[in-house]
Amino acid sequence: MGSLNIDPELQNNSVSCINPLDSEELRRQGHLIIDFIADYYKNVEKQPVRSQVEPGYLSKCLPKSAPNNPEPIEKILQDVHEHIVPGITHWQSPNYFAYFPSSGSVAGIIGEMISTGFNVVGFNWMSSPAATELENIVMDWLGEMLKLPKSFLFSGKGGGVIQGTTCEAILCTLSAARDRILNKIGRENITKLVVYGSDQTHSALQKAAQIAGIDPKNFRAIKTMKSSSFGLSPDSLQLTVESDVEAGLIPLFLCATVGTTGTTAVDPIGPLCDIAKRYGIWVHIDAAYAGSSCICPEFRHFLDGIEDADSFSLNAHKWFFTTLDCCCLWVKNPGALIQSLSTNPEFLRNRASDSKTVVDYKDWQITLSRRFRSMKLWLVLRSYGVTNLRNFLRSHVKMAKLFEELVGEDKRFEVVVPRNFAMVCFRVVPSTLDKEPVNKFNNELLESINKSGKLYMTHAIVEGIFVIRFAIGATLTEERHVVAAWKVVQQHLEANLNMI
Amino acid sequence: MGSLNIDPELQNNSVSCINPLDSEELRRQGHLIIDFIADYYKNVEKQPVRSQVEPGYLSKCLPKSAPNNPEPIEKILQDVHEHIVPGITHWQSPNYFAYFPSSGSVAGIIGEMISTGFNVVGFNWMSSPAATELENIVMDWLGEMLKLPKSFLFSGKGGGVIQGTTCEAILCTLSAARDRILNKIGRENITKLVVYGSDQTHSALQKAAQIAGIDPKNFRAIKTMKSSSFGLSPDSLQLTVESDVEAGLIPLFLCATVGTTGTTAVDPIGPLCDIAKRYGIWVHIDAAYAGSSCICPEFRHFLDGIEDADSFSLNAHKWFFTTLDCCCLWVKNPGALIQSLSTNPEFLRNRASDSKTVVDYKDWQITLSRRFRSMKLWLVLRSYGVTNLRNFLRSHVKMAKLFEELVGEDKRFEVVVPRNFAMVCFRVVPSTLDKEPVNKFNNELLESINKSGKLYMTHAIVEGIFVIRFAIGATLTEERHVVAAWKVVQQHLEANLNMI
Repeated sequence: MGSLNIDPELQNNSVSCINPLDSEELRRQGHLIIDFIADYYKNVEKQPVRSQVEPGYLSKCLPKSAPNNPEPIEKILQDVHEHIVPGITHWQSPNYFAYFPSSGSVAGIIGEMISTGFNVVGFNWMSSPAATELENIVMDWLGEMLKLPKSFLFSGKGGGVIQGTTCEAILCTLSAARDRILNKIGRENITKLVVYGSDQTHSALQKAAQIAGIDPKNFRAIKTMKSSSFGLSPDSLQLTVESDVEAGLIPLFLCATVGTTGTTAVDPIGPLCDIAKRYGIWVHIDAAYAGSSCICPEFRHFLDGIEDADSFSLNAHKWFFTTLDCCCLWVKNPGALIQSLSTNPEFLRNRASDSKTVVDYKDWQITLSRRFRSMKLWLVLRSYGVTNLRNFLRSHVKMAKLFEELVGEDKRFEVVVPRNFAMVCFRVVPSTLDKEPVNKFNNELLESINKSGKLYMTHAIVEGIFVIRFAIGATLTEERHVVAAWKVVQQHLEANLNMI
Repeated sequence: MGSLNIDPELQNNSVSCINPLDSEELRRQGHLIIDFIADYYKNVEKQPVRSQVEPGYLSKCLPKSAPNNPEPIEKILQDVHEHIVPGITHWQSPNYFAYFPSSGSVAGIIGEMISTGFNVVGFNWMSSPAATELENIVMDWLGEMLKLPKSFLFSGKGGGVIQGTTCEAILCTLSAARDRILNKIGRENITKLVVYGSDQTHSALQKAAQIAGIDPKNFRAIKTMKSSSFGLSPDSLQLTVESDVEAGLIPLFLCATVGTTGTTAVDPIGPLCDIAKRYGIWVHIDAAYAGSSCICPEFRHFLDGIEDADSFSLNAHKWFFTTLDCCCLWVKNPGALIQSLSTNPEFLRNRASDSKTVVDYKDWQITLSRRFRSMKLWLVLRSYGVTNLRNFLRSHVKMAKLFEELVGEDKRFEVVVPRNFAMVCFRVVPSTLDKEPVNKFNNELLESINKSGKLYMTHAIVEGIFVIRFAIGATLTEERHVVAAWKVVQQHLEANLNMI
């Protein structure tokens, strides 16, 4: 054990002059950083969207070891500017159209700063009552904005919890579903449990199933087709489930998606739930990207049938102006989550928990420690208000429609699947029936555009077709960026055609 | 599908005047918030440490629904001040001695702000190269500071990853261990796998085992004893493993702890690894709290034997000045993690990943989306430097020694277990052999102190003994707070004795 008396460093007492949490130093550095971040946003449009660095670039710029002595914030900021910014892919650029958006906002950033400032660890109610209660409240607020059935809200014996990401939300609900059934039929049946999604379902489902100990051969990625817009067909689900049951397997969990990652396809929730109900399957609705749009009445119908699902999640950090990470999960039966995920170590026992009058979110998620994430969601809801939030989302959809029209006007291109939300899947029209050269050409076109740094898009492959995904939702994107982006696409097509 | 033409709200074009990510509005609000947070720290000492609110208090202060129209930040901040601050347990108060610390710092807060500002989603290298490469670099820096065997560092074919919390780190390594063995012997053997810890191991292990599909009856919490300072005895492990093997079960995973939550006990890593090696058991070292102290040479011996472990984690957000969340996990064989946790959906395919020259951290953790957490760790390491960081930790240990001496000088109290780091476990000396009334008295003493708001401590129960845990590590704590805290304890003892 360390005896402090012998340590020369401490005898020098060099530590006594530094207070690492001095409020005036925090004020000084904080103001510096705010200006740094505000300037970043002011100029983010000028950055190449996708980082242009090569693998291993950063180790050439930084020392091999941590410094022994303190370095001033000014020097560190200079390094951030010189070495980090070039290595960032600028998700907040108005010319960012890749993957799905990570739509930031002033309110989201401010909210994150406040929770960072308090730096509480809200694992149970007692450890910071406000963190738990604000989460209860905003999850009911948002649930009402989405017109979720009352059974998903605290006010109706369900409830919401903010997870980090959809991967966690799926893993927690899958774990709850698994234990609900295994507690009845015996743990040895774990090898018979089957998990269902489509070939368009996010890889988070497969990963969650792997982590939860589901036999990989019992994971079903049911094939979808272009003819049904890549939605999961209830008939296909029915056939797959029947065949599993005949084989002596036990259907466990279905993840249906509202707005798939590849093409924003929507699985028909109602008919899928009807089948699931007959087999006692837990249905989770993953609306990671598109869920937020359902606060607009004209999109709400995509959730029709949700009353028969067991759980529902969306990522407020995707398309709802809340910085990463903020996955909103609602469940009808919190008891099932708690049954699977609770542990009650002595060191956390307290009167409030024992009284059962409070929510202890540690039992609704994987981790014990949890950040005060509801703060940023609360700030987003209040700073903009429901009306503006709807209109922000609509403005993205409107821009996607514009892009779709631009694609439609150029006979060299085609929109590959119908647009549902604010993403357009397009490609250069094939001049041959042979898929491979067409895919290769589109792939090279995409790479040449991304390499230019002028905009950033990503791709999907559906039914063997390589499509370019143009996802609108970066908060700073305006119509002029969309128009300019389309011109860049056209220019690159011409340049690439000339190279052939 | 939503047609925008018919929507009267959008026709009003009310949205066009608001840019939710306007850089000047961010600057204005950001400066406001920095002052708010700096003022919070300036005055945090005056707050009652444990929140004094009653369950359900917040719903009485806030409206039932989200507002339709925007509200100004000044009004929201007023609500934070009036309604949220009273509901917070002030983990950053210098009088916070509960659980383990969540030791914030200016550098940690600033680092978190920068990553919030960039708001990138660093799931793979391509999605933000700097986020991945900085994490590679700082994890090697910190690994070297801890004198981890080279086999745990990138420079030695191992590597480090920043997870959210220890729960995730354990779940990921357990999942890797499970799949490594099941891929050899068949998935049907999952029901035979056994997980080992002690009765002092953090509940995160049990929870991870539950989530990973380990049969709850195959979870072993091996009994520890006061006579061996609540460390896990190698003999007990050996006997337990032998008996499992004889019963046809398969030993899978051992979690050994350096600094248990109850009493900061240390399991003897070397001898435990020797046994584990004979049975092919994956050994994870959980040093969530105490790990950071091992950057001081005089504490490093607690990690002796680590060269035979498979993985090691510590929470930089606990006792290393890095805001929540920041769990540093090192593994010797990243391939085992990747094998268990990787998914390779088409939409993420890119040349850098295909080239296998980069790290894609999505395959090292549960979630796909991940925050740029290395930024704050980098800022902490650079802003303070290794020498100061060691001395900060030593100053906490020194204060714990002081508190231990104060307890020792008062014959009414006793230190229950030897102090290893910066936590003292003490209680009022029993005047009877009957445990229950003594425990009850100490429990009531603790509750009366916490209720006063003057300081906050929590408890543990070991071998049936209720102990009060005095954990030093809140960054603002100085010697005067420790001395004052001890006086409060004495005063409450006297008051409680008078009440009998």
